[in-house]
Amino acid sequence: MIESVTNIDVRYYETDLMGIVHHSNYIRYFECGRNQLLIDCGIPMPEIERRGIMLPVIDVKCHYYNPSRFGDVLTVKTVIEKMPMVKIEAKAEIRNQNGELIVRGAVILGTIDSVTRRPVRMPEFMREKLCKYFN
Amino acid sequence: MIESVTNIDVRYYETDLMGIVHHSNYIRYFECGRNQLLIDCGIPMPEIERRGIMLPVIDVKCHYYNPSRFGDVLTVKTVIEKMPMVKIEAKAEIRNQNGELIVRGAVILGTIDSVTRRPVRMPEFMREKLCKYFN
Amino acid sequence: MIESVTNIDVRYYETDLMGIVHHSNYIRYFECGRNQLLIDCGIPMPEIERRGIMLPVIDVKCHYYNPSRFGDVLTVKTVIEKMPMVKIEAKAEIRNQNGELIVRGAVILGTIDSVTRRPVRMPEFMREKLCKYFN
Amino acid sequence: MIESVTNIDVRYYETDLMGIVHHSNYIRYFECGRNQLLIDCGIPMPEIERRGIMLPVIDVKCHYYNPSRFGDVLTVKTVIEKMPMVKIEAKAEIRNQNGELIVRGAVILGTIDSVTRRPVRMPEFMREKLCKYFN
Repeated sequence: MIESVTNIDVRYYETDLMGIVHHSNYIRYFECGRNQLLIDCGIPMPEIERRGIMLPVIDVKCHYYNPSRFGDVLTVKTVIEKMPMVKIEAKAEIRNQNGELIVRGAVILGTIDSVTRRPVRMPEFMREKLCKYFN
Repeated sequence: MIESVTNIDVRYYETDLMGIVHHSNYIRYFECGRNQLLIDCGIPMPEIERRGIMLPVIDVKCHYYNPSRFGDVLTVKTVIEKMPMVKIEAKAEIRNQNGELIVRGAVILGTIDSVTRRPVRMPEFMREKLCKYFN
Repeated sequence: MIESVTNIDVRYYETDLMGIVHHSNYIRYFECGRNQLLIDCGIPMPEIERRGIMLPVIDVKCHYYNPSRFGDVLTVKTVIEKMPMVKIEAKAEIRNQNGELIVRGAVILGTIDSVTRRPVRMPEFMREKLCKYFN
Repeated sequence: MIESVTNIDVRYYETDLMGIVHHSNYIRYFECGRNQLLIDCGIPMPEIERRGIMLPVIDVKCHYYNPSRFGDVLTVKTVIEKMPMVKIEAKAEIRNQNGELIVRGAVILGTIDSVTRRPVRMPEFMREKLCKYFN
């Protein structure tokens, strides 16, 4: 299992008319969480892109438990539970500074070649970095 | 059943490094679709808000089939299949100008009182407008 | 002089806690206006990019006169007053459906080679399309 | 003079097709900087809003010197040079982790009553917090 944690300061413009963070932004916070996880694993996105791989989102699910507001500091916990082969499934949970559950979700990413734009098996440089977390 | 269709011109800034619309934006396009559906039903969001009701998102699902790009004109088809009581489930499908399926998803909205921020049964003025589509 | 007009439907998520369109979004609407102007001139952005040119923003100015809200339909008028050589200056004015002035601004774009990322003189295919508006 | 510094991690979705942060986002980073300045002064935005005051943006200027990219950590330095009466002028400068100048700009905010939506003189609770920085 890989687990990564990152913090997000809610920005003013991310809140909507209801005074709460617009629901679409959590999907973006999930991405921040995944990017941190990749950094923690030693394969930051710019490195992955340089090597000709893109990780487009294939599926997103998000359930909303409580609102968050400007001034909140959110913690995004991102988990990959099983060693990815072609697709990567990353679960995510976001809590506020009081530990209250804000949202929970899951995102599935594909692995594609950035030139052909066709799905490919996860390249060795990524597998190597990720596999040590799964025994 | 209620069905509504609206068009979205993809904006340049909505595309990301991969040259395709960032996945989070489809969640926003879904909202544009729902807002158009509410207008078509005679209960635009500003009217709903003036009457003290908010419709926060409780759950989002989205599956991504094909990418879209700057210059594409997308069609969002939004469908409410059953008469909502407390929660509203709106399914959505987005296709490009060539009829290609881009994404398909579903969003569940709650009905809450904007003062107490507590869930309420859907108010009469909304039920009245919506129920004529369901027999 | 080149003048182009395009419409923008204000989206719900573009409004903030104050219930008005967040000021940063007008900068994005300006871009929508410029992109329409380029389409009107026969050189849409994807065509410009395919030919290895990028038009990064060098300077932005925007003055805010009146707020706009969800439900408003805005008209962006974009004007290029003098034939661009290296830099393009586009002035923009946004009004709502009642003709009220919302914002007025100006954006200066550079012309750079997308490979070298160095400034270049505006390429012939662009000059040709633009120069017929200036006599 | 009031000076405040805050950091911004560039998020992936903030970059555009050119692989660089979309110019509109710096206007949002400026806001993050101003919000941090208000926190440093002891008058965070939610407190200002609770007291019935809104600070709408009246004017924005931004000049772009160098691009920034996903992975960059930006520093926003926000400065108020003279004690504000009705309007607040905040200058801002953003540099990357290598100290390179990315953008420089200025934003003018109004002070309005959130009920009447009319301009008001800056209220005493704000003046008190701000004036100690100006002698």
